[in-house]
Amino acid sequence: MTRNTILNLSCPMPTLDFDVITLGHGSGGVLTNRLLESGVFSLLKNPLLDTHHDGAVFELSGNLAFSTDSYVISPVFFPGGNIGELAVNGTVNDLAMCGAIPRYLSLSFIIEEGLPISEFWEILVSIKNSAECADVQIVTGDTKVVEKGKGDKIFINTSGIGQVHPKAHISSKNIKVGDKIIVSGNVATHGIAIMSVREGLDFETTIISDTTNLNHTVKALLDDFGADIHLLRDPTRGGVATVLNEIAKDCGFGINISQNQIPVLEQVFGACEILGLDPLYVANEGIFMAIVAAEIADNFVKKLSEFDNGTDAAIIGEVVLEHPKQVILTSKIGGKRVVNMLVGEQLPRIC
Amino acid sequence: MTRNTILNLSCPMPTLDFDVITLGHGSGGVLTNRLLESGVFSLLKNPLLDTHHDGAVFELSGNLAFSTDSYVISPVFFPGGNIGELAVNGTVNDLAMCGAIPRYLSLSFIIEEGLPISEFWEILVSIKNSAECADVQIVTGDTKVVEKGKGDKIFINTSGIGQVHPKAHISSKNIKVGDKIIVSGNVATHGIAIMSVREGLDFETTIISDTTNLNHTVKALLDDFGADIHLLRDPTRGGVATVLNEIAKDCGFGINISQNQIPVLEQVFGACEILGLDPLYVANEGIFMAIVAAEIADNFVKKLSEFDNGTDAAIIGEVVLEHPKQVILTSKIGGKRVVNMLVGEQLPRIC
Repeated sequence: MTRNTILNLSCPMPTLDFDVITLGHGSGGVLTNRLLESGVFSLLKNPLLDTHHDGAVFELSGNLAFSTDSYVISPVFFPGGNIGELAVNGTVNDLAMCGAIPRYLSLSFIIEEGLPISEFWEILVSIKNSAECADVQIVTGDTKVVEKGKGDKIFINTSGIGQVHPKAHISSKNIKVGDKIIVSGNVATHGIAIMSVREGLDFETTIISDTTNLNHTVKALLDDFGADIHLLRDPTRGGVATVLNEIAKDCGFGINISQNQIPVLEQVFGACEILGLDPLYVANEGIFMAIVAAEIADNFVKKLSEFDNGTDAAIIGEVVLEHPKQVILTSKIGGKRVVNMLVGEQLPRIC
Repeated sequence: MTRNTILNLSCPMPTLDFDVITLGHGSGGVLTNRLLESGVFSLLKNPLLDTHHDGAVFELSGNLAFSTDSYVISPVFFPGGNIGELAVNGTVNDLAMCGAIPRYLSLSFIIEEGLPISEFWEILVSIKNSAECADVQIVTGDTKVVEKGKGDKIFINTSGIGQVHPKAHISSKNIKVGDKIIVSGNVATHGIAIMSVREGLDFETTIISDTTNLNHTVKALLDDFGADIHLLRDPTRGGVATVLNEIAKDCGFGINISQNQIPVLEQVFGACEILGLDPLYVANEGIFMAIVAAEIADNFVKKLSEFDNGTDAAIIGEVVLEHPKQVILTSKIGGKRVVNMLVGEQLPRIC
């Protein structure tokens, strides 16, 4: 089945009297209304969005998490997904990393004049589907259009609100010497999926992005392990190496990791070798890192591995008193080296 | 004093070893950290932002409002402001239109490679100042950089969370026949300020944008008039005409307005004549429209006129049973005409 056939079965594109987005669709007037009323509102339908006001109003109480990200990935369609589901999953996951149950998302488009409506619709359908999978509602939004050459197809901002899990106590201040460092799945997959499209690399099988929501898995872990989960972070831009450096700096301890323990798909590892990239610096979208109390680490990994997005989870290192604020890797052949933060830009516009 | 002198007095730009934003500043690695640590975090400093996590966590309860907008205005510096304060005031005002007290904002940049650091800093200082004026905190953010020619200097998304005023009951469902339509100030000022720069028009005095926060004024009105304020809307893109049409459509009644009553600065009116624009369709940033119970209308205007941003407030029309879902204007010479929604695009990238 082609991409369009799949779409047509579930969410047929509305019949419109325009094929591409024009500046007028960002005017706030008749064309903006026609675009939204033609299918956007009905596709993303929920009682809060349906009020069509300047914002959404809802009742929510307690400890809340609030996060934002703008997505500028290029190309907007890539193996394993598109910018739409990335924008939903990315913000959902940032909320999950705060120990929160994501509830409401905002959705804001900056579209380059000339974007085919068919592509816009495909992105919208992905947004709808990934929001449903993550069990979040899109409750408010915005659409702007810029002239040809002043943008690049489409940029998307999502911001999100979640309720912090009652058992969560996520803070770098809780990290203790001896804590274990866990990664929930194979590293570097998203970055290499994007890079292989951009560089036109051909592998035996296509490497697809790992983009997915992590919130259901994280909730189950918080249910079981609560405050023994000291920190959660998703290693997106800058990869595992950059996040570990930020954590070491924040908590003031050292971090040791073991190259042998870091899960990487064989094909991704091969691609990294060809491209001269260290998988530790390559971006991820569907994995997270957890710093947990040593005594729960094995059970944490066991529980995590029951989930589709946790089957390759592994303990990759621990927090130590030595070399404060530094990350040291023990290589496969036993050598030790300092792992620094990403310098410069490895893969621009990866998310 | 030049623009830079003013800035230097209050928030001196940090000394950096780069003059322009590069792709590396969006990498998530060392350069992103250096950019943020060099002054961004200290400029916008508050306890929630200082955690530097993937999101902010805070306690908040009750009826909340949530809104988002992406700002793509061109030029980014314009008479009376820049994209930074527009981005803060715009989302603050959207929350105020929901009857909410704005509390927390997110801030997300999409920067075109090559933006001078000095311009970025000037925008940041405006963001800081306007957030302070509006009494909101920037608690979470994101920075992306796109290649030269794939953006246009800087796009900013702000999303915001506010607490709905306990006396507020804002909904188009509350609108009744006989309700009065009030505009809080002169219309069309922002749009003409931008247009005059773009078209190189020279007037006796510079027309400056009306961008400002409306939340303090709206709060005071809600304190006094509560549920007698039936609807609040800010007529940004599409102007007063478009918002009135949306209101008429939503509530199902007709709307009559009187051209004589609509406040427009003389110079703005003149510029509209030269440019062939109807002020009713020109964008605003610092005014709002209120639909209120007839019996409070005069007192509402009186109270509003006590505020700096309400001195030109006026009753411009009323809700009627006739011509449902249509807006009818009585012109200065007594003729009547239908006022439709904005068709096409009058002034692209006005906000």
